[in-house]
Amino acid sequence: MIETKTISETKEIIQDNKDYTLFSWSKQKGTNPIAVKYGEGVYLYDYDGKRYIDFSSGLMNVNIGHGDQRITAAVMKQMQEVSYVTPSCVTKVRGELGKKLAEICPGDLNKAFFTLCGATSIENAIKLARLYTGRHKILTRYQSYHGASVGAISASGDPRRIPVDAQQAPNFVHFDLPYAYRYEHGEEALLKDCVAQLERIIAYEGPGNIAAILLEGQSGSSGCFMYPDGYLKSVRQICDKHGILLIMDEVMSGFGRTGKWFGFQHHDIVPDMIAMAKGLTCGYLPFGCLMVSDKIAVKYDDAVLPLGLTYSAHPVSCAAALETLKIYEDDNLIENAEAMGRYLDSRIEELKQKHPCIGDWRNEGLLGCLELVKNRKTKEPMAPFNAKPDEMVVMNKVAAKIKELGMYTFVRWGYVFIAPPLIVTKEQIDEGLAIISEALKIADEAAQPL
Amino acid sequence: MIETKTISETKEIIQDNKDYTLFSWSKQKGTNPIAVKYGEGVYLYDYDGKRYIDFSSGLMNVNIGHGDQRITAAVMKQMQEVSYVTPSCVTKVRGELGKKLAEICPGDLNKAFFTLCGATSIENAIKLARLYTGRHKILTRYQSYHGASVGAISASGDPRRIPVDAQQAPNFVHFDLPYAYRYEHGEEALLKDCVAQLERIIAYEGPGNIAAILLEGQSGSSGCFMYPDGYLKSVRQICDKHGILLIMDEVMSGFGRTGKWFGFQHHDIVPDMIAMAKGLTCGYLPFGCLMVSDKIAVKYDDAVLPLGLTYSAHPVSCAAALETLKIYEDDNLIENAEAMGRYLDSRIEELKQKHPCIGDWRNEGLLGCLELVKNRKTKEPMAPFNAKPDEMVVMNKVAAKIKELGMYTFVRWGYVFIAPPLIVTKEQIDEGLAIISEALKIADEAAQPL
Ligand SMILES: Cc1ncc(COP(=O)(O)O)c(C=O)c1O
Ligand SMILES: Cc1ncc(COP(=O)(O)O)c(C=O)c1O
Repeated sequence: MIETKTISETKEIIQDNKDYTLFSWSKQKGTNPIAVKYGEGVYLYDYDGKRYIDFSSGLMNVNIGHGDQRITAAVMKQMQEVSYVTPSCVTKVRGELGKKLAEICPGDLNKAFFTLCGATSIENAIKLARLYTGRHKILTRYQSYHGASVGAISASGDPRRIPVDAQQAPNFVHFDLPYAYRYEHGEEALLKDCVAQLERIIAYEGPGNIAAILLEGQSGSSGCFMYPDGYLKSVRQICDKHGILLIMDEVMSGFGRTGKWFGFQHHDIVPDMIAMAKGLTCGYLPFGCLMVSDKIAVKYDDAVLPLGLTYSAHPVSCAAALETLKIYEDDNLIENAEAMGRYLDSRIEELKQKHPCIGDWRNEGLLGCLELVKNRKTKEPMAPFNAKPDEMVVMNKVAAKIKELGMYTFVRWGYVFIAPPLIVTKEQIDEGLAIISEALKIADEAAQPL
Repeated sequence: MIETKTISETKEIIQDNKDYTLFSWSKQKGTNPIAVKYGEGVYLYDYDGKRYIDFSSGLMNVNIGHGDQRITAAVMKQMQEVSYVTPSCVTKVRGELGKKLAEICPGDLNKAFFTLCGATSIENAIKLARLYTGRHKILTRYQSYHGASVGAISASGDPRRIPVDAQQAPNFVHFDLPYAYRYEHGEEALLKDCVAQLERIIAYEGPGNIAAILLEGQSGSSGCFMYPDGYLKSVRQICDKHGILLIMDEVMSGFGRTGKWFGFQHHDIVPDMIAMAKGLTCGYLPFGCLMVSDKIAVKYDDAVLPLGLTYSAHPVSCAAALETLKIYEDDNLIENAEAMGRYLDSRIEELKQKHPCIGDWRNEGLLGCLELVKNRKTKEPMAPFNAKPDEMVVMNKVAAKIKELGMYTFVRWGYVFIAPPLIVTKEQIDEGLAIISEALKIADEAAQPL
């Protein structure tokens, strides 16, 4: 009974949320959340009427922007027919969505197993890869995130794994992939070294023990580290040589985020499975999908497929996904992401001239990340990997400034992510970059002048 | 391009689903799914106009029945405001729902961590129990199901775990809990034996190594095995004695299914955490929640809570849940479940006189299960635990008859589940039981006459 008439609606909403709900990945005290009243396009509005430009599309998922009422209409239509059927029943939308995804996916990736989120797609990919190959090990990279459930977090090479280290599932092997900005021997050597290292690790672990290599289609929340040119092609060849499956995690990089349907399409390969979520419904409803090749699926024609979850192929989520896919096409959003990505790149080049704190800019389409440094020559980071609170003083001020100036985006360690909805315009990019430029002045003060 | 004009809409829908989507827990060939066009109340309708009475409420989750347009309205309203915000932002519905759940839950279970489904609630419960206690082992029972992700399936004592046995996460210990129908020494001895066994296992495993005991609030898909009277109370005491947390999985038994809000409320205990899903939104949208006691939550006031998922506290799912909870109350559904449960029990007593194949009937509220036997005296099961295909001949015929006569329900091994939506009327129970009675004639032929 916390009702009182003297506190504002905003305060009351925040108080209820703090009193009765738990916040992810943070201390419960001292969080200062935005109370979102409504969203429209690239903007979110709080209960006090303050507008925020959403420069990370939520968690890099609201690709079509906020408040698109075409999704509401599709959801309503489905809910007027049937909201829930068990996954052993079928619905029109489920079949249509499967067919549409088969059309979008390259190669023989024609079978959709519908899940709920990124983690459940990854969990099912891992399970299926092990069942199909009869092998137990999964290879993934450090500096990757695949979700928080036991299987997905064990696969992740992200510090979110560290507090639950004692809870890891066995048979996940992580390998290191240096990134160009911090690698000293040039791009060509990087490719050679990375491929050679992967081959050694596979030999050490035993190729016949390895079920799958799992990689983000394009690196996301770890810092948008680009694969060296030709790397994924080599990985595909190595997989084929050893009968290892290649699973692409397109949870963040999928659905136009990088200017193509999927991140791996920049690398001219076809994986054996694709884990999807986020952009599939753009967050309008929870949903995910594991896309499986015919080669794998056919094994379960006459054998039981031991995967399942109560909400698999949820009809309302299917309807939302179908409409989302239509919007990508009707509104040419993937083309726009590509074009706006190029514009963004050119604008960041200008900012680099002005801000000594900008060390690196890595981007494909609209999945971009500024890496801030104290010194462009030494590349000393503004905040290190998994920075402790006292290493975050400057970056926290940058983040606070960004918020104060009316932007919502993802700031992590020394990284400022720039991943607006794919509907973004040049003017909105300018508007957002003006805010970021203003905030970067704080970091500039902590950086060696140019 | 499978379009042809000669096949019916039903066939086309089924074909699309088979060609482009994967089916859970089954062979992909030879499945014969119902294509659901719409749902209303306790009924589902296919594209050929055939009506099915849904006697398992989907997967025991559609407690308020199908097609309730009050949920559609609540969903639409939320989607007109904002569909998605990141879990670090707050919304009005999230706070309101947390508050409402705190009101419904007993004791100091006041903090909601919102998830997506049963498995993600369980995953987070396990993670948090281990973090909070600093211990690693989780004790669960055989004959239980907690979900399909690595953590949840490792906790489960269900045969769905067997095909992925090599993929289990470590530190899950299963104990056996005999059930009264197949226990030879009487109810009192059963309680004593079960408690003594649990105490021994805890001693063998080391009480200081055990983070939590995880149990279904009321046994569900394993066969509705009732806890001996007083058992959960003893478990609570044992937990308190050793600093072990007690987690109740109310995914299936929660939200009125047993005639009370939660299954454990029949046993006069308060757990430390409650895993929720299913009845929380009745399947209208995917959702779940882990309810946590203040005692546990307070530890994360000044320490990072390392849980998270992209769709945590999804605003639209929160809105659907809030409306669902309102419907339980407005329509007195929990009272109705209790009353209809008693009516159902009395009607099954009559069926027992007629059908020699009925060995046991176990039910609380509307979470019931008929156990079929070949012989009432020897209790030889009509199909054993984890029956092989050739042991399912009779039961498959029973299941096919049930479907043919216009019922959807859950038939597993020798069990026929009866768990209709909580809105069910006496007439609808009669209607459903008439179908089941007709189908049981097939099993009667394989049973020793009375
Ligand atoms: C690449 C990638 N995979 C998987 C996930 C996990 O998705 P979810 O939070 O929906 O479980 C994320 C989430 O950020 C992600 O970025
Ligand atoms: C008791 C119980 N816990 C957990 C689950 C898993 O729920 P989900 O399928 O939503 O992951 C189920 C599913 O049937 C269940 O019955």
